[in-house]
Formats: sequence, structure tokens, C-alpha cells
Amino acid sequence: MSVFTPVSQSQLAAWLKNYSVGALRALEPIAAGIENTNYFVTTAQGRFVLTLFERLSAAELPFYLELMAHLARHGIPCPAPMADLADRYLSQLNGKPAALVTRLPGASIERPGEAECAELGALLARLHLAGRSYAGYLENPRGPKWWRQAARDLQGHLAPEDGALLEAELAFQSQHRFAELPRGPVHADLFRDNALFEGGRISGVIDFYFAGVDCLLYDLAVCANDWCLVEPQRDRQLDADRARALLAAYHALRPFAAAEAAAWPAMLRAAALRFWLSRLHDYHLPRAGELVRVHDPAHFRALLALRAAPGAAPDAAPWLE
Amino acid sequence: MSVFTPVSQSQLAAWLKNYSVGALRALEPIAAGIENTNYFVTTAQGRFVLTLFERLSAAELPFYLELMAHLARHGIPCPAPMADLADRYLSQLNGKPAALVTRLPGASIERPGEAECAELGALLARLHLAGRSYAGYLENPRGPKWWRQAARDLQGHLAPEDGALLEAELAFQSQHRFAELPRGPVHADLFRDNALFEGGRISGVIDFYFAGVDCLLYDLAVCANDWCLVEPQRDRQLDADRARALLAAYHALRPFAAAEAAAWPAMLRAAALRFWLSRLHDYHLPRAGELVRVHDPAHFRALLALRAAPGAAPDAAPWLE
Repeated sequence: MSVFTPVSQSQLAAWLKNYSVGALRALEPIAAGIENTNYFVTTAQGRFVLTLFERLSAAELPFYLELMAHLARHGIPCPAPMADLADRYLSQLNGKPAALVTRLPGASIERPGEAECAELGALLARLHLAGRSYAGYLENPRGPKWWRQAARDLQGHLAPEDGALLEAELAFQSQHRFAELPRGPVHADLFRDNALFEGGRISGVIDFYFAGVDCLLYDLAVCANDWCLVEPQRDRQLDADRARALLAAYHALRPFAAAEAAAWPAMLRAAALRFWLSRLHDYHLPRAGELVRVHDPAHFRALLALRAAPGAAPDAAPWLE
Repeated sequence: MSVFTPVSQSQLAAWLKNYSVGALRALEPIAAGIENTNYFVTTAQGRFVLTLFERLSAAELPFYLELMAHLARHGIPCPAPMADLADRYLSQLNGKPAALVTRLPGASIERPGEAECAELGALLARLHLAGRSYAGYLENPRGPKWWRQAARDLQGHLAPEDGALLEAELAFQSQHRFAELPRGPVHADLFRDNALFEGGRISGVIDFYFAGVDCLLYDLAVCANDWCLVEPQRDRQLDADRARALLAAYHALRPFAAAEAAAWPAMLRAAALRFWLSRLHDYHLPRAGELVRVHDPAHFRALLALRAAPGAAPDAAPWLE
């Protein structure tokens, strides 16, 4: 259960008087999500999600809200923030920064096939193309700088072999800074549960609150490491057909540069490293008062070890060429 | 049939490469509409309306497109313009200014009841409240200045009794300039066929291309003259229950000022005058090459004569007090 800051029906009804979205009909807490307080909100006009931000600061939030607004008005099916009567996306509710965004239809799928991976690839390409004209800037908050900080935080918490794997990977990544790759706003957390499908099409991409500016290819690596595993939790190799479907559909709309094909194996490792690190961090250094379910770091450790093993890299690259 | 500028499937598919809305699936001309060329457009992502502007200039269009974008991000169910990859709402297609907007669900209703009039009143109030923070400005293009120009254009075309009614009404209106009434962006053309309903709720307000800044009360007068007639084309008195439902639902969200109650009878006449004039203009002075159906001016002449008759005014006002 992830309601950190409760909101009552009457508190919300009063708050909604600052908006033009119609009168409140229903309010329902959302159990999923580990970062913010979320409610489904139904008004006379439609269905929305109310988020009270528990982690992000009011300084970072405009990047996210304006990014979603930007993508939505380019036709990307992402939550569209609602502006209040003072024309602001962000306001305060019960002492927290709060925003109201559209609720998208559809449901996530646990076992995507080639068709769904192709849908995802096309959607990501459209998202990246639309993001090119976005003026906001926030460096990927879980990018290389954060990796190094997290590794320092974790000193003394890791088993020796984990520490050695981490050090080796940080050293490897520091030699692959991808300075020449196309960059822009990336979702950076587009796991299967953050994509909603309806009738075989992606009807929603949600949870942008780890987005930032990074290599566009990084988004694909995060996706491949989650959507394209042969057998999640058991066989972490990439399924060749699904990975090819993801990359080919993307490539058809935003053709890969040669440097991106070369960077793919290292990028898959970077994406595995990022989630191994954040899960280690959540596991060993939970924030005070946190009641959320902690994901086991073992899955991403195994994923990283597999991707980093000698001989793993050459297999992965040809789909981009 | 209102396709003035044909667009082929391949022309549109090429044009859509400048957008992030997904690949073209289907293209279907829209017969309704007398001002612009409109097509329904279906892409891999969703349903849109393509408009090629035949009357409005590229100088006026930003007011309309930005207004729709503004209202949409405040939760008003109006067509949301899609930005292209250069982040513009407006571009060119086949030599005409063109825009792609979301297609809204629902269908218009011919015989609204009290419930639908109340929905409309609440929607209009929300639209006006959201419009307060809109920075764009365009004077109502069919407002008092245009009335006087149209009356000059029509000199020599009108029967003597029509000319006398017109002169008398222009004189009356010139003594009621409503300078003290709340003003803002108004739709100004919200006839029944420009509101879509789904499940008893307004799911769409469309066709903003006569919008402008005017008295907010004018929007209600245009609506009352179309939605609330006892028997359209036969008994043009306002049905008391529907008119009260319209105004009460509006008043609950944006309370009327005392001056608005006083101005209501004259505003109903102003709204009747505007449409009588435009239909006279279309009838007597059609634009060259126009193939559209011309509405009979007689309905709005009768409406104006009824509203302007001695004794008509006092009945109309009490609903706003």
C-alpha cells in the first residue's frame, strides 16, 4: 500500500474547485507505486490520477510535468497534466506538491510477444522524436553520476564478490561514456508495468518520474532487459525475435546511428547496472519510514553478470545494423 | 459536401511524417461544416480530425489553436491540437494552413432536455473559468463591429420591413454595449451540433472557429436561442425549464453578476441578430465558388422579432437573479 499522505473526499473536492475538470465523483487509492501517493479520481468530466509527490522536489517537478504535457500534445499516449485555474500544473495538497493527470485506458501485459515489442519500439521512437523539441533539461537522475554516488553509499554493505562486480562494471562503463550518441529526454523506466495496452496497441505510457536526458539508446536497453528476456527470472538472455521486433520497429521511425549499434552491448549492461544499484540501495539503505515492497536485487545482479560475461556482447549487436 | 481542398492518402501519409501520432490507417472526408475542409484521420495511435483552413488567415489561427490547447489542458473536452516535430500546431498542406486535432467521441443530440441543458451550462461555466488564464486575444469576429459592416454590405438587398427591423435592432444594441459585463474567450457558436454527448455527459465541444473575446453571457444567449426553444422552427419562446437548467448549472460554478441578469434580454437579441445577419449575408452575398448549403435566414429573423417585441424582455430575466 503506497498512500503516504491520505486525502479525503472533502479535501479533494475543495482542491478541485481550483480546476476546470468537473465535480468530484469518486476517489480511490492506488496500491501500486513505491515513490508517491496516488489516487484514481473520477469527475463529471473524466478519469484522472492524482499524485502527491513524496520524493521529487518542487524544483524537479516542472521538468516532468512539462515533459508529459509536451509529449501528450505531440500525440504520445502519456498522462497529460491538467492545468489549474491559475494555469499551473503543480500545486499543493495536504502539504505536498500535487498534480492531476489524465488516467489512460488499458492494462499492462506480463508476457509480451513480438507484436507488443514492435508496438513498444515504435512508441519509443515517436516519443524520442517528439522529445527533440522539448526545451526542459534534467540529467538522468539515475545516470552515471548517481551510480558512483550509490556505489559509495553501499560501501561496507556488499558481499566481496558483489563489490568486485560493481567496481569492474563502473570501470567498464567509465570507458564507455557514449558522448557521441543521440541524446534527449528518455523515460528510463519503461518496464512492462509502465505500458498499458488496449486492443493490441499501446494506449498509455505511464510513470515518467525517473525520466531525464540521456542517450536515447538507453531507453531501448532498459526495455530490452525487461520486455525481451527469454524467461524472466530464469533465462535472462534476450529472446532474439522479440529484441529484433523492438529494435526494428524503432529503427523504422528513427534509424540507429552506427555508433548506437556499437554501443548496444555496453548500454544493456548500463541499464542492468542502474537497476541493480537502485535495488541494492533500497535493500541496504531504505529511507526512514518507508513501507514499500523492496525488489530483490538478485535479478539485476544476474542480468548484469550475464551481460558482462566474456562473449556475451557480440551476440547482442547485430539487430541494430 | 465540404471538401474544398482534396487530400490523398499518400499526401497525408507524407505530411504525417512531421508528427508523432503514428502511421496513417484511414482518411475519410467529413461532409458537415461550411467553412473548412475536414477529414477524419485514423492512425496507429488514435482518431484525429484534419482541418485545412479555407477562410481564416494564418494570422488568426494561432488564437484558435492555442485556445483549444489551453482549454484541453484544463480538462475541457475540446479538440486538442497536435504539435508537429517542429513543435507547431499549424503547418501547410496542399497550399492551405492545416492542423490536426483530436477527434472526440459522442454524438450531438437534436432534442436536448433539462439534463442536457444543465450539462451544457456547467460545461460553459468551466470553459469560461478556464479561459480566464488564456493570454491570447481576438475580438469576437462576429461582434458589433461586424454587425455594422454586414448591415452596410446588405444595403439594397433587404425587403423594407427587414431593413427596418435591422436598423432598429442595431440602434437598440448600440445603446447596450455591455461594457460592465465579465468578458473572456467565448465559443460563440455552441449550437446543438457542436456539442457531443456520450452516456448523458458532454464528451466534446467542437468547432471553435468563430470563437473570440466577448461578454461571457453572450455564449449563454447563443445556446439558449438554440437549445432551449419550446419547439424549434415553430415556437421560438424559451422553454422555461430548459433555460433555467442551463443558467442554474452555469450560475452554480460561475455566479452571475447583477449586471448580467439585467443584460440577459438584450443579449438574447444580440445573439439572434448575429445569426440573422450572417445568414442574410450568406444568402444575399455568397462567396465566389461556394458550394455549401445556405441556412434560411427566416428562422433567426423570427427569433429576433419575437425577442425584440414589446413585452418579451421582462419574462426572460428572472432565471439569472
